[in-house]
Amino acid sequence: MERIPILRMGDILLVTIQVDMYDRLAMTLQDDLTTRIAENGARGVLIDISSLDVVDSFMGRILSNISLMASVLDAATVVVGMQPAVAITLVELGLSLQGVKTALNVGRGMTLLRAMIESRTEETEDVGREE
Amino acid sequence: MERIPILRMGDILLVTIQVDMYDRLAMTLQDDLTTRIAENGARGVLIDISSLDVVDSFMGRILSNISLMASVLDAATVVVGMQPAVAITLVELGLSLQGVKTALNVGRGMTLLRAMIESRTEETEDVGREE
Repeated sequence: MERIPILRMGDILLVTIQVDMYDRLAMTLQDDLTTRIAENGARGVLIDISSLDVVDSFMGRILSNISLMASVLDAATVVVGMQPAVAITLVELGLSLQGVKTALNVGRGMTLLRAMIESRTEETEDVGREE
Repeated sequence: MERIPILRMGDILLVTIQVDMYDRLAMTLQDDLTTRIAENGARGVLIDISSLDVVDSFMGRILSNISLMASVLDAATVVVGMQPAVAITLVELGLSLQGVKTALNVGRGMTLLRAMIESRTEETEDVGREE
């Protein structure tokens, strides 16, 4: 069965989406990703969509869902590499990637992810102190 | 046109091959990768093939070629994530991935790549001293 590979780099999982998503593939990715976050105790997910020429409402919802699921499992998500034309289309179609953080490229995405992970950790520590 | 995305992480380029290769795609990948190595001054290339169920002689030659080209441009290449069944088939078919270094997963691949880059750097320094 076709599935999208998930690469582990330390406590960050890296996903490169290269093919158009359809229902089953999206489900498999969500399953795989949540399982891997739990297994590896990953703190962040980086999703590269640089090879996608089109991001429609379905793809937008998948990205939103993944981000939300990861968040519930205490992992931050950043989407990187969006093509300029895709950004234009998203805005023109009135689509918003709800709850999805984006960055220009992998380098900046990693920096953003590190900052998000750090601020989450600090919040957790603050809560710990209050108790 | 379809093309395989190349992600930059510091001085390492990361390629995830998810689709079966055909001539034009392989050519494009070789072109893109060599251009990126030169542009970014990359020292290493990590190729993930975990989603490939089949590695035939054509794919083997592409991996070999990429590794050789990168080597000429002074970048080390490591192929990671090969499925056990693929390894068995490769040996049974008598195919050898000439000049290609492999590692089990991305983590180990990164470690191997760092070691290879370091030893290349040391060699260069030694040559520099001898002159």
